[in-house]
Order: sequence, then C-alpha cells, then structure tokens
Amino acid sequence: MATVIQLAEQKTKDREAAAKRDIGAVVKRLTALVEGELAEVNKVILQEMQSEVALIPQLAGHLIAAGGKRLRPVLTLAAAKLCGYTGSRQVGLAACVEFIHTATLLHDDVVDESDLRRGIATANAVWGNKASVLVGDFLFSRAFQLMVSDGSLKVLKVLSDASAIIAEGEVQQLMTANDTDTGEEAYLSVVKAKTAALFSAACQVGAVVAERPSNEEDALVSYGTNLGIAFQIVDDVLDYSAKQADLGKSIGDDFQEGKVTLPIILAYRRGNEEERSFWRRTIEDLEQEDGDLEHAMSLMTKHNTLVDSLDRARHYGSVAKDALGLFPDSEVRETLADLIDFCIERGH
Amino acid sequence: MATVIQLAEQKTKDREAAAKRDIGAVVKRLTALVEGELAEVNKVILQEMQSEVALIPQLAGHLIAAGGKRLRPVLTLAAAKLCGYTGSRQVGLAACVEFIHTATLLHDDVVDESDLRRGIATANAVWGNKASVLVGDFLFSRAFQLMVSDGSLKVLKVLSDASAIIAEGEVQQLMTANDTDTGEEAYLSVVKAKTAALFSAACQVGAVVAERPSNEEDALVSYGTNLGIAFQIVDDVLDYSAKQADLGKSIGDDFQEGKVTLPIILAYRRGNEEERSFWRRTIEDLEQEDGDLEHAMSLMTKHNTLVDSLDRARHYGSVAKDALGLFPDSEVRETLADLIDFCIERGH
Repeated sequence: MATVIQLAEQKTKDREAAAKRDIGAVVKRLTALVEGELAEVNKVILQEMQSEVALIPQLAGHLIAAGGKRLRPVLTLAAAKLCGYTGSRQVGLAACVEFIHTATLLHDDVVDESDLRRGIATANAVWGNKASVLVGDFLFSRAFQLMVSDGSLKVLKVLSDASAIIAEGEVQQLMTANDTDTGEEAYLSVVKAKTAALFSAACQVGAVVAERPSNEEDALVSYGTNLGIAFQIVDDVLDYSAKQADLGKSIGDDFQEGKVTLPIILAYRRGNEEERSFWRRTIEDLEQEDGDLEHAMSLMTKHNTLVDSLDRARHYGSVAKDALGLFPDSEVRETLADLIDFCIERGH
Repeated sequence: MATVIQLAEQKTKDREAAAKRDIGAVVKRLTALVEGELAEVNKVILQEMQSEVALIPQLAGHLIAAGGKRLRPVLTLAAAKLCGYTGSRQVGLAACVEFIHTATLLHDDVVDESDLRRGIATANAVWGNKASVLVGDFLFSRAFQLMVSDGSLKVLKVLSDASAIIAEGEVQQLMTANDTDTGEEAYLSVVKAKTAALFSAACQVGAVVAERPSNEEDALVSYGTNLGIAFQIVDDVLDYSAKQADLGKSIGDDFQEGKVTLPIILAYRRGNEEERSFWRRTIEDLEQEDGDLEHAMSLMTKHNTLVDSLDRARHYGSVAKDALGLFPDSEVRETLADLIDFCIERGH
C-alpha cells in the first residue's frame, strides 16, 4: 500500500517536473513574472522601429512582430527584478537587446542564405538581401540611440562590447565553416561570441540598472553566458531532431550548409577513416547525395553524439544554475533556474 | 605695356587659384594642418581593427589601408582645431568616424554589387559578401566601443543619430532605385542622409569636444551638411565624366545600375516623351544596349544637366562657406573654405 502511494506521489512529482520543463510552461511563467514591463518593451519596440522610410517598419515588423519568444529582453527584465530593481530603465534597454538580436538575425539570414525562420519566410527571402543588410544596420543604430537616451556609459559599454564580440564571432564562424578540423574549443569560442555574449549582456544590464555590487553582476554574467552556451548547443542538436519539424524548421539544415556543429565535431573525432572521408565529402566539399543526411544521422547515433552534446549542454546549465545561488530565494530565481532545464530538456 | 603686365599678373593669379583648387593641393594643405593628429588617428585605426579573427584585420585593412583621403576624420581634426581645441579626444573620435564610414562602404559595396572601389577590387569581390557584411558589423561595433571609451554622451548622441540617419538613407535609396519618378527633393533627402549626415557629424564632433557654444556647433553642422551635399552631387556628376577613368573608376557605373542621380533627374524632367521612354527602358527596366550610355550622355549634354547639377552643388557650397563666417580668420578656416571649391571644381 505504501509502495502504491509512493508510486502515485512519484508520478505526480514527475508530471509536475515535466510540466515545469515544458516550453510553454516555463517561458510563460517567466514572462508572466515580467508581464507589465514586457508590454512596455513591446510598445517601445513598435515605436522605435518606425521610420518615414516605409520599408523599415515593414521589414522589421515582419521579423519582430512574428514574435519569437522575446527570450533576451525577458532575461533583462527578469534579471532586473531578481536584483530588486523597481525603476523603469530596464524597459528601453530590453528593447535595445531585442533590436541588436533582430539586426543580427537579419544579417545572419543573409549570410546563411536562409529562406525560413520560425517557420515563416525570412526577410531576405521576401525583400532581398540588400534590404535585410540595410534594415539590420538601421536597427543596430537605433539600438545605440536607445542606449544613449538611457544615458548610462556602463550600459553602453556592456552592450557595445557585446556587439563587437558577436560580430567577431560571426566572422570566426564564417572562417571555420565547412572545416572538419574545427575542434570543440573553436566551436565553443564561436558559440560564446555569437550567442552567449548577448544572453550575458542582456542579464548583466539588469544588475547594472539596479546598481548591484559587482559579485551579483558577475553572477548574472555567468548565468547568461552559460545559459547561452547551453541554449546554442541544444539548438545545434535540435537541427538533427524530429522536433524541428514542429518548430517550422526542416531537419538537417546545418548539415546541408556544411555547418560544423558539436554533434558533427564529436562524430568526426570518434569516427573511422571511412566515416571521416564521408564527413569531408559532405561537409567540406558539400558534395551531398540522397541518403547522406540519413547516413550522417546514423553515424551520430552510432557514436552517441547527439546525447553527448546534450550532456555538454547540461554541464553549462549546471554552472548557470549555481551562478543564481547568490540571490535570495524568489519566484524569479526559481523560474530562471527552471529555464535552464527547459533549454536543455527541449533537446530530448 | 600695362596690359601685358596685367595679363601676366592675371595669369599668375589664375595659376595660384588653380593650384589652390587642385585636389592634391587643398586636401594636402588641410591634412598638413592636422598632420600630427592624423598620424595618431592612423595608429588608433590600425590598433582598433585588430582581432584574433584574422579575416577582420585582413579585410578591414584592405579597405582602410588602401587609403582614400581620410576626408571625414580630417574634417573632425580640422573642426576641433578651428574651435581652438588643444586636447586629444578628437583623435579617437576621428577614428570612430572613419570606422563608421568604412562599415558603410563595406555594406554599400555588397548592396551595389560593386567590384571596384578607388581602382582596387572591393572587399566583397575578394572575400565575398558574407565577410563584408560581418566585418562591416564588427567595425561599426568597434566604432561604438571607441565612442564609449571617450565617455561623452553628447558625442555618442551625435554619432548614433548620424548612424541611424545614414542607414535610413540607404534604405530610402534602395526603395527609390530605378524609379524615374524620383524627384530632386527625394534625391536630396537621400544625399543628406547617406552622405551629408556623416560629414556633418564629423565636423560637429570637433565643436563638441572643444565645448564651444551652440552657435558654433550649429555652424559646423551647416558646413558639414552642405559640404557633404555638394560632395555627393559632384560625385554623381563625376560618374559621367572622363575624369573617372583617372580615379580608377569606369564611366557610367551609375547608369548601368540604373541609379537615379541628379543629372538623370534633370534630363528626365527636361526631356520629351521619346527621351523619357529611353530613360524608363534603360533605368527602370535596365534593358540596356550598346550605345545607350553614349545616348544618355548626349541627352545630359543636350539639356545641360551635368553643368546644372554642378551649379546646384555650388549653391550648397556657398551655404557651407558662409557657415564658416562665425569663426575667426585662420589658416584652418581658409583651407576649409578652399576645400569647398575643390569639392566642386573637381567636377569640371
């Protein structure tokens, strides 16, 4: 009888734990905690993307209004709340963060020659590369105008440093593209720059506006950085997952572009000579035939590289979680911790 | 005898006047006045374009080291000197201005699909569009980092506003491309944004670091804006001039791309229906045949549009010259005034 009750209790706990990790649930919970501020952020975004040049709000609106999760601005709002900030500066700065992210996406899609993002046509597919490059430049400049109007040189430093690091990471990624010699360290260095730097800056800004001591600021930098790394690794794993289809993406886009992400890096290193020559043909020479994607995925399964990549992500997630330890227990802290689990579990 | 002497004197005066207007002479004279600071600017540029990602200094160096006249940073240095500034903040800010300009050029060449700039292969022709987009982003971010390290929110506002205006102007230009309906006002609005805004900001920054009263700051804004407009109009005229070949450019690039610049705007408006249908075919539909460029140029000659465009440029040049009137007479002021003449005369 006791066993039955224990089993039932365990099931309930499991269900609760699963619900906690559910995409909708966790992000919605975090978003609900900053709901009022996020509504203000959305207003600022809509207002600041206006221009007399009609193509700018059209193109920017296509991407910004399409939504996405607004994960980065939500992180800024949540970090400010975690730091006990009661002012309103985080609103404009969260909009900056989203503008920098959007500008990066516009340029990324041009560089990657992507046609789809979040299941809808990319801006470059609709309006062409030229418009995407130039509207990206506009949003980036607008982000700096917003920061300047906030008036904090410290915030300006955090976000301009992040922007330079992101751009540097994008160039590095371009240089290591299609190169099976890329090792895990080089991969991580790109991930830290192109993804984690903005997660980190988004969180750090929350501590800066709250004028918290440097140990709390450092803790939020660590949380953002490690969450960002975990997020990107899982994203790279998801590219080979059936779940992609649910997100409006197709499986194996990275493979088709010859992107050397962690699952491939591990498979190449663990593979025999025949397997390596397969990777070189498909990834370096981009000579791909029918069935190659399936073969690539079977090699990843054989060497367990998708699961092991998620393990690597879990490591960074653990570091992120401990970084939150400094802050007093609160619903925001708990939800930021759950967000890490969600980021990783969505890969399974 | 008196007539002979008068003639000889006149000849000497003419020669002196011609020498003053000579490209080498005027820009060299202005550059010589800020020689020490410009050497420092070049050091900052070389230092700040470094990155562990090798492609960044390679690609940036290709464009930056190739030289050009460094006209915009020289304007910042000269404006600071005109304002009697004796500090050194103008050095880093002049480097910022050049970085913003270089980032814009990189993106411009991608958007225009150009192969040549200043007679050498463009970065996009050598390294591809992707690298040019991303290194442009890097230089733009680096410019903001440099501004932040200067620490003046006012300077940050001037330059971030200019950046947003430039990007807006570039998008507007894209939207009006190949449209013979573009009028002189729409053309001017693009020129003010994409060219004059950075000339203006470059000059304004000189007054800001010198902490001059707002009337002097406004005067430098006016000088920079009007010089920039004149400069761009002449540039657009030069595209149809044999002088282009000397500058390593080919004649009629704008025509081939269907760019609606002032000489074409005037020719379209002054032309008869047959001529207008020629412009629509070549500029809007981009259906160009052998001999079309020659015909276009004969229509511009018929309607005197190249000469009249230079007259428009002269108007803006006059406004720029009068804007300098506030400042006490000095070698810098005189040379800044001569620069206007040079900008216009190079079109003849």
